[in-house]
Formats: sequence, structure tokens, C-alpha cells
Amino acid sequence: MNYSTKLQAAWARSKSLVCVGLDPEPSRFPARFQSRPDGIFAFNKAIIDATADIVCAFKPQFAHFAAAGALDQLSATIDYIRDRYPHVPVILDAKRGDVGSTAAFYAKEAFDQYHADAVTVNPYLGGDSIAPFTQYADRGTILLCRTSNAGGTDFQERLIDGKPLYIHVARKAANEWNGNKNISLVVGATVPKVIADVRYVVGDMPLLVPGVGAQGGDLKATVEAGRDIKGAGLVINASRSVLYASNGEDFAHAARGVVEQMIADGAKVE
Amino acid sequence: MNYSTKLQAAWARSKSLVCVGLDPEPSRFPARFQSRPDGIFAFNKAIIDATADIVCAFKPQFAHFAAAGALDQLSATIDYIRDRYPHVPVILDAKRGDVGSTAAFYAKEAFDQYHADAVTVNPYLGGDSIAPFTQYADRGTILLCRTSNAGGTDFQERLIDGKPLYIHVARKAANEWNGNKNISLVVGATVPKVIADVRYVVGDMPLLVPGVGAQGGDLKATVEAGRDIKGAGLVINASRSVLYASNGEDFAHAARGVVEQMIADGAKVE
Repeated sequence: MNYSTKLQAAWARSKSLVCVGLDPEPSRFPARFQSRPDGIFAFNKAIIDATADIVCAFKPQFAHFAAAGALDQLSATIDYIRDRYPHVPVILDAKRGDVGSTAAFYAKEAFDQYHADAVTVNPYLGGDSIAPFTQYADRGTILLCRTSNAGGTDFQERLIDGKPLYIHVARKAANEWNGNKNISLVVGATVPKVIADVRYVVGDMPLLVPGVGAQGGDLKATVEAGRDIKGAGLVINASRSVLYASNGEDFAHAARGVVEQMIADGAKVE
Repeated sequence: MNYSTKLQAAWARSKSLVCVGLDPEPSRFPARFQSRPDGIFAFNKAIIDATADIVCAFKPQFAHFAAAGALDQLSATIDYIRDRYPHVPVILDAKRGDVGSTAAFYAKEAFDQYHADAVTVNPYLGGDSIAPFTQYADRGTILLCRTSNAGGTDFQERLIDGKPLYIHVARKAANEWNGNKNISLVVGATVPKVIADVRYVVGDMPLLVPGVGAQGGDLKATVEAGRDIKGAGLVINASRSVLYASNGEDFAHAARGVVEQMIADGAKVE
């Protein structure tokens, strides 16, 4: 099953637009996980088990594992999801990007080494840096478009021929690079108008939306601005607000509670 | 010793502007390395030993190790250079880039896990995505500015207020983000005028220049356009043209020959 089909099925099955981002920070774990050599995997496993039926995707974030020297636990986390919850797509959030010949090695890393269903990619290097990812027709390529951080305005909002750079990225993605129909875009939740503008350009292309939760984006306005005509089309990521809702023994229950609240607040297929 | 000082000393000592990029592709190695489990490290070691006295830096490329599931050999390669040739800076070419809170984990990966002297970073996410790298005052942050690939024109050449995007990146790097004087820029060798324009904006900031060699850039024109007023300022990378000059038993000797030829052709401090 390819990424697009798997994501559509996950929306239909869960009715949820929520993606749980797995950004492990061991110092924020409950104490008993901090002393275990496989503490990151064990923590992730508990979060995954507590939320898998009410999410449309999981998104492990590469740097959090790499900085801890724990890429084996990244593999274990992805393998666990694929084994236990094969209907839930795994997005490897690695924000790769390099010239074409090297991009092919990054595609191999994400798709062959880690077996991710989709990977995030930076578009700054242009079309030939993206093609090696999209050539994996059964996997998803999720391009940064308008990011949710403060620095997202530095270049992404600058006008080129009267339109911000991120709109040019959206246009290239939708009109030139999407021959395999496997591109998605990252659009931050911080400004709903931005999501609406990108949705207008890209039709029913899936949008990965960070910035709700710890980063403060407005969930209801985000969903209204971004849902596609079928009432889905959004992968709304929350990481820290879910993972660290509690650092007591109730952490997994508390994590589920945050996802349920997001769904109650509107992060659902309609 | 910080990265800038180390690089200045490497130029002064070697009189070379050449950086050897370590982009291991085992299928292109001499046969005896292909069957060894540590073949990537052993191949790199031979290249390093053959060229360390005539280069100003080594640049291992992350994806080539990651795609082969050989990040342990990336560590071993960097550790070997640091141990045997401590005067030669190591640039980890990983092209990282993420929102500030995550960028801090990527900085930790490059500088604490791999002990790189410098790392390449994608500027698309703006200032707060770059600060966690530059805050390591003793290390180098090398921002993509104008890349050497065909897709480099897709966004980087687009005009904003009459100047191409890459010039805006160069301006921010030089005028806003360089408080620790540890930023360099990546500027491809494919158009000498581009290098001259960036040099004009950034003064004596070091420029990492890929695209000579396999990618076809003109070495002599690149050096003339890009040298700083002290006759250095360039880190001219060659990877495949050096590593795979021969796949026979003379491969290391042949690699050295290519570097020597680049120096003879003008890639030297003057």
C-alpha cells in the first residue's frame, strides 16, 4: 500500500487529523525510563500504544534520536509501529535536502534503512534535489513550504513576482514535481490565512501542520482553513504537548487525553 | 582552537584551497575494500593519509554513510582525522535545518556526537533555525547560499527586491547572524560571477565551493572570483573526482595526483 492510500485509509479509520510527533527528550520522561538503556524506545512504545487508534500518523523526529546517539532506538520505534500498527503511516521528520546525486542517498536512508512511509524534505535546492525522493512512488515526500517558527518569515514570506516564496514552493510542488502524486507540504499552524492560501494552490494535496500545541497555533482556525473538500487532507502534528502532558506514571493516559481533546476541539475528519 | 582559527592555520600550513569530500560509494572502491565490514573506513583512511598534507579540510558527507547503515564508520573516519591530523578541520556535510528547538538537537548531533569542526546548514527556516549552531562559538556553521546543482536556480536565483534570494541569504549571514564570526557560506563553482557577487557582500567570510571536478565548474575562474584579500578564503571541495580517480591499487596515489593537479591549476593560497 502506498503512502497516499495508507494516509487516506488512516483518516477514514481513525476519523482523526492528529499526528503524534515522537520527539524524545529523556530528561522529560518519567524517572523509570531515564535509567534504562532502551528508555527512549520504551517511552515511545507506551505513547504509541496509548494513541495508535486515535491518530492518522506518527512522526518520529530524527535529531532527537541522533543527538542522544540512539538511532538504533529510532529504528526500533519505526519497526514497532510497522509491526503492531501497520495501518498507521510513519513520517520520518528529518528535513533532508541535497544535490540530486546525494539526495538519492538520503532517500535510501529514509526509505530503505528506516522503512519510513514518508520523509520531510527541504526545498531550497530545487527540483533535482527532490526527484530522488518522489521517485519512490510508494512513499511520501513532504516538502517544507511555510514553517511555523519565527524565522519562517526571513525568506519564506519574501515576495517574488508579488507572491511569497512559500507560494512558489507550493506551485512547483503541485504543478511540476508531483507526477507520482506523492508530495505533501509542511505548513505551520501559526497563521490560518497561510494555510488557506496554500490549500487554494494545491487542491487536495495533504498538508502536514506543525505549530499547534507547544507552539501556540489556533487549532480550530487551522482546521477550518486547511481541510480539503473531502473533510480531511490535514496531518496536524503535536509533539511536546502530548508526550510531556505528565511526567508521572499517568503520562501515557495523559498523552491520550491531549489527543482526545484535540479531536474534540476540531482535529477530526468531517 | 576554534574553527575559523583552525581553517586559517590550515590554509597557511598547506597553502592549499582544496578540501577532499569523503562521499563513500563502496561499489566504486577497489575490490579488496568491498568485502570488508569496515571497508568504508579503511578506504577513507587511505585517502586521508594520501592527501592530508595538501588539503585545507576534509568533508565527510553524512548521507553516504547513513544510506549504507555505516554511521559508526562516519564516527571512525572523523575520529581518525582528529587523532592523526588534528590541524585539518573536519566539515560534516549534513545540510541540517529545523525550527530552533529541534535545531539545537542537530547542533548537538554534529558537534557533540560526531565532534565535527563545522557543519553545513540549510537557511530556508531562517534565523532562529541557525542560532543553535552558531552558538557553538568554537565551531563553524556553513550555510547553503547558492548551490551548484541545476535546481539551484528554482528558488535561489529568484529576485526579491531586485536581488536574488541567495544574496539575501548572504546579507543576513554577514550582517545579522555572524556575531560569533563563525559562519561560512556554500557557493557553487558553476558560475564565477555568483562567487564574485557573494564575496562582495560578505567580505572575508570563508566560502565552501562545491561543483569543481565531477560537476564541471571552472577552477581557475572560481579561484579568481572568490579569493579574499588575503589570497585565501576558499574551501574548494572535490569528492568523486578525487576518490574515484582510479579503482585499482593505485587509487590513493591517483587521488593525491588529482589534488596536486587542482593546486597546480590554481587552487592555492597566494
